[in-house]
Amino acid sequence: MGVQELGVVRRNITRADTAAVQKLSRFGVATIHEAMGRLGLMKPEIRPIYTGAQLCGTAVTVLLQPGDNWMMHVAAEQIQPGDVVVAACTADSTDGFFGDLLATSFRARGCKGLVIDGGVRDIKDLTAMDFPVFSRAIHAKGTIKATLGSVNVPVVCAGAMVNPGDVVIGDLDGVVVVPAALAQQVADAAEAREASEVAKRAKLAAGVLGLDMYNMREPLAKAGLRYID
Amino acid sequence: MGVQELGVVRRNITRADTAAVQKLSRFGVATIHEAMGRLGLMKPEIRPIYTGAQLCGTAVTVLLQPGDNWMMHVAAEQIQPGDVVVAACTADSTDGFFGDLLATSFRARGCKGLVIDGGVRDIKDLTAMDFPVFSRAIHAKGTIKATLGSVNVPVVCAGAMVNPGDVVIGDLDGVVVVPAALAQQVADAAEAREASEVAKRAKLAAGVLGLDMYNMREPLAKAGLRYID
Amino acid sequence: MGVQELGVVRRNITRADTAAVQKLSRFGVATIHEAMGRLGLMKPEIRPIYTGAQLCGTAVTVLLQPGDNWMMHVAAEQIQPGDVVVAACTADSTDGFFGDLLATSFRARGCKGLVIDGGVRDIKDLTAMDFPVFSRAIHAKGTIKATLGSVNVPVVCAGAMVNPGDVVIGDLDGVVVVPAALAQQVADAAEAREASEVAKRAKLAAGVLGLDMYNMREPLAKAGLRYID
Amino acid sequence: MGVQELGVVRRNITRADTAAVQKLSRFGVATIHEAMGRLGLMKPEIRPIYTGAQLCGTAVTVLLQPGDNWMMHVAAEQIQPGDVVVAACTADSTDGFFGDLLATSFRARGCKGLVIDGGVRDIKDLTAMDFPVFSRAIHAKGTIKATLGSVNVPVVCAGAMVNPGDVVIGDLDGVVVVPAALAQQVADAAEAREASEVAKRAKLAAGVLGLDMYNMREPLAKAGLRYID
Amino acid sequence: MGVQELGVVRRNITRADTAAVQKLSRFGVATIHEAMGRLGLMKPEIRPIYTGAQLCGTAVTVLLQPGDNWMMHVAAEQIQPGDVVVAACTADSTDGFFGDLLATSFRARGCKGLVIDGGVRDIKDLTAMDFPVFSRAIHAKGTIKATLGSVNVPVVCAGAMVNPGDVVIGDLDGVVVVPAALAQQVADAAEAREASEVAKRAKLAAGVLGLDMYNMREPLAKAGLRYID
Amino acid sequence: MGVQELGVVRRNITRADTAAVQKLSRFGVATIHEAMGRLGLMKPEIRPIYTGAQLCGTAVTVLLQPGDNWMMHVAAEQIQPGDVVVAACTADSTDGFFGDLLATSFRARGCKGLVIDGGVRDIKDLTAMDFPVFSRAIHAKGTIKATLGSVNVPVVCAGAMVNPGDVVIGDLDGVVVVPAALAQQVADAAEAREASEVAKRAKLAAGVLGLDMYNMREPLAKAGLRYID
Repeated sequence: MGVQELGVVRRNITRADTAAVQKLSRFGVATIHEAMGRLGLMKPEIRPIYTGAQLCGTAVTVLLQPGDNWMMHVAAEQIQPGDVVVAACTADSTDGFFGDLLATSFRARGCKGLVIDGGVRDIKDLTAMDFPVFSRAIHAKGTIKATLGSVNVPVVCAGAMVNPGDVVIGDLDGVVVVPAALAQQVADAAEAREASEVAKRAKLAAGVLGLDMYNMREPLAKAGLRYID
Repeated sequence: MGVQELGVVRRNITRADTAAVQKLSRFGVATIHEAMGRLGLMKPEIRPIYTGAQLCGTAVTVLLQPGDNWMMHVAAEQIQPGDVVVAACTADSTDGFFGDLLATSFRARGCKGLVIDGGVRDIKDLTAMDFPVFSRAIHAKGTIKATLGSVNVPVVCAGAMVNPGDVVIGDLDGVVVVPAALAQQVADAAEAREASEVAKRAKLAAGVLGLDMYNMREPLAKAGLRYID
Repeated sequence: MGVQELGVVRRNITRADTAAVQKLSRFGVATIHEAMGRLGLMKPEIRPIYTGAQLCGTAVTVLLQPGDNWMMHVAAEQIQPGDVVVAACTADSTDGFFGDLLATSFRARGCKGLVIDGGVRDIKDLTAMDFPVFSRAIHAKGTIKATLGSVNVPVVCAGAMVNPGDVVIGDLDGVVVVPAALAQQVADAAEAREASEVAKRAKLAAGVLGLDMYNMREPLAKAGLRYID
Repeated sequence: MGVQELGVVRRNITRADTAAVQKLSRFGVATIHEAMGRLGLMKPEIRPIYTGAQLCGTAVTVLLQPGDNWMMHVAAEQIQPGDVVVAACTADSTDGFFGDLLATSFRARGCKGLVIDGGVRDIKDLTAMDFPVFSRAIHAKGTIKATLGSVNVPVVCAGAMVNPGDVVIGDLDGVVVVPAALAQQVADAAEAREASEVAKRAKLAAGVLGLDMYNMREPLAKAGLRYID
Repeated sequence: MGVQELGVVRRNITRADTAAVQKLSRFGVATIHEAMGRLGLMKPEIRPIYTGAQLCGTAVTVLLQPGDNWMMHVAAEQIQPGDVVVAACTADSTDGFFGDLLATSFRARGCKGLVIDGGVRDIKDLTAMDFPVFSRAIHAKGTIKATLGSVNVPVVCAGAMVNPGDVVIGDLDGVVVVPAALAQQVADAAEAREASEVAKRAKLAAGVLGLDMYNMREPLAKAGLRYID
Repeated sequence: MGVQELGVVRRNITRADTAAVQKLSRFGVATIHEAMGRLGLMKPEIRPIYTGAQLCGTAVTVLLQPGDNWMMHVAAEQIQPGDVVVAACTADSTDGFFGDLLATSFRARGCKGLVIDGGVRDIKDLTAMDFPVFSRAIHAKGTIKATLGSVNVPVVCAGAMVNPGDVVIGDLDGVVVVPAALAQQVADAAEAREASEVAKRAKLAAGVLGLDMYNMREPLAKAGLRYID
């Protein structure tokens, strides 16, 4: 685990393999979280700002200071097509660090969306642009540009460790982070998991019980489950 | 009030009268709550996972352990057409206890929906299925199957007491629980209340003030209300 | 700052200038908040009860007691066309102080909507009526009519000071309050700000970086920002 | 499970056996909770108002209305020596329902303390009196006496079901409720558990690892735990 | 109600009458809150940082920016002996705006303590100094000095309106604000209230019930209270 | 930044230099946080379970599953004298993962204390033992031993990144984490900072204003601060 540092912009980062990212984009957050062995989730407080918002891309990380969005502008220059900006903050803050102007700038650089452990504003415009944002809060509160944070350092965003270049996937179920080095392996596991669910879904729809399909009756009895009439 | 117990599945429960449930399904949560004398509400943290989700049915109760959804599979077998599953947890947990596979299984049994004092996932699928869920959180976090809880014991779900067989009604205003024995009486009271509101609504729409319609001016003056110009 | 008082209804209040209110209605909450020098916002817990709810009008203020909506009826009589009711409470409460009957009455008086630091109910009806409400909670819990609060006294609503007659604007970004005396000045500043953003948006969309457009490179270097390859 | 009702005072309740209550008073909340099979705990938001507050007694239950402490006075008359008052509320409220005057009255009746899912005040006096209170909040906010609740009906207090006559135990670890009918059995189980811990504590203090004392190494290996150097 | 403004320091403020402040210092927060007609309380999230902290003095108000304590230094110069500093923030922030150095400076000016809708640090030192602080949070997080707020403008602190010169009283029950103009009148009312409680306390201690002392039996019966054996 | 993994115990970790840890133990959390450039703090929800609890040592990290403390026993074996156990959880949980038996075992291994992003119990015993614990919650809720987590992998605990071997310092101001590689450098910086504060404190105590001591008057005027009489 690297060390967080302030006042630093790392320009060269190793992004996850494009094909792996592409493949991951086909799966939902819950499936990928399972495929990763149930790790990598952000806290449930992070929600999409509009129904239908979803994103998948490689992380450009930002470490913000509370009430200060200066580093968002610094981050814009580091965005490459296919990136998602992941913004953490050195202290809890619901201020509106991001709005439609920054979204316009980010999109012009090829940005796929934003995940921020803080607040955003201009929700109507962001929705109209269909610029996906996952945030802790919606707040019109403006921010200043006075103190250095960092760009492309390891960050903790909503309880999840994010390294620059990691794959970040967000949908209605929340946001999950896949370390760059594991992207292909997790994508394959997600594919396998999804395939295996098709048959299960059909059985369950036909009325087969999970109790039988998963052979749970014996372990339940062993654990002491009693049926009372 | 019965006693909560772990490791127990009650198979025979007394469900509220079908006609009463049917009648209750015509009224909103706020009306039924008033008809019950302002009791029976769950806490406002329990929200529908998609706009338009609504449900009315008889409760199959589940007592879960935190991070463990084993009992959901046990509960599935106890569901009869028209039931709503009401899941409580022995400790606060926002884990995703429920997703589209369980919803498929529940629906195959005739389940009308889920109320859970915890988290759920696969929101996109659940919405597409129009499977109504009211939950405390949305979280992709997976759960294990290791510890016994119970099915069809009395539970406390989001601050409300729920006995198996009670009527559970959920809509945009939240979730209310009607004891099975009171179902018909509450349904009748709800009907009367709704009828009485039609005339009131018309008067208010015509510009009559509640101050006059409810004869509040005298009690307000008596309480000491002063008008200042 | 006036003094809050209980048991008082002020009948004559000075509403913000109609033309200024009209002009303010053209701008979003974030823009107006910036135009006011970044003051006047309510806390982000206050959210619209349905997507698309928005309002702009002059404040009729209400000071409620917890679990008691008596003063809402008193307030109804003080509403003039174009007013927004702003309801504060003497203690935190998520009870449902407001529903479709009161909305019907308020609308009959020309009310433009409600902002309440508490709960509301009948969400389905309020949405169907397109009656905009911004609230802290949605809860079916009924309220009583037993204790005096006040109407048209200064209140603190969700952290913001509101005087009767102030302009209150709500949209997807939250709620902002503009003192009546500043309405025209803030409306003009909002117009200027919005105009200045058009050019900026075009530049950013064309790929110009905020770093260059706002001349940030020098101050960032001065602050010690280091780029690492 | 009984049904909650408003406007009712039950005068004759069946209190848990005095000897069992006496025995339970010797054990801590964590031990009793384990002895009950890990059920019966209130939520951790309920905290003692001063360090050292602890209580054990039979429940006189109160169902309050938000912002209204009328029923506390009604409850006072139902208190018998050795009782603990357990106050729930029909909606979340942090108002100060209880202070030194009520504590004086309760103590005069032989009351052992208060557990309340709400706020209390006069903390300095209550501490000086050593009158143990476990509450959700401390707030000076006064309450009214206007609306009926109930006394000695089943209530849900901080997530726990409480029937009148149940044993309620509170200490630094929180509050646990033991159904009256189980009091003796749980007291015996608590005693056994505590006895068994003495030997364990000695072993652990001597450096024996839980891994060995509880024979965990094999199940851990079976579950797949890998040691890396 | 005045208007909040940024970048302003008001040097001449009208402090509440010294004798009235002196008299108010003899009463607790709950008593004063009642004497004010149940207004003026801050939210219960504001707590003393150590047991026994209490304060009473005239307000020097500060409006802070999130994560920025520059204005605290500006405020120091405006402190006169007997003042209490009341610090609000333009957005929610738990940063540590205040520590032992500022406390040393404030005390040198005769400051009686601090009330802050934010975080503080150096708790060990502040406790050793017996410098009373009431805050929303304890957090070591440092702040910057970059953006203007204001000193001695009207502020909203933890939900309460505070004007410079108002009396601020804090004890274990929380914090209450008395408008300067009402200080004497509230002090007198508090004295009367406290006097009236002596007799009540004696009666209750002697076993008289509130039901009888306050003549509640008849109104309770009228409200429909039913006793069941 | 390493990758979190489940089912793994790392036996050989690089602990921070003993002399540096020793030196860091002389300084408070706020001072060390400043000396680190204002990074490394845990969220303010993590509080000591008793007044006076403080700790400083090298981290043995634990990744727990919600409601499951199996890994605490695995961690015990990895503790060396001078270590502090830092326990994170894969999902939010306030369950009581730790009590006096584990504390006895940990202490027998030379453990200096526990920091846990979860709940603990047996507070009375832990206080009597003077075993310092910093936790998010106090809850008697028992946990199971069923699912693998990890020991000595990188974890996110209460928003802070912690690697095994890092220095963890906790006091009344909260908890800060110093990366092992920076321990000496941060200790030196803390020493320097503390030394510099002695002179400042003396000046401030003598009545010198921060405005003058820090030369703030000119930058404040430049920023536009206006004094009004």
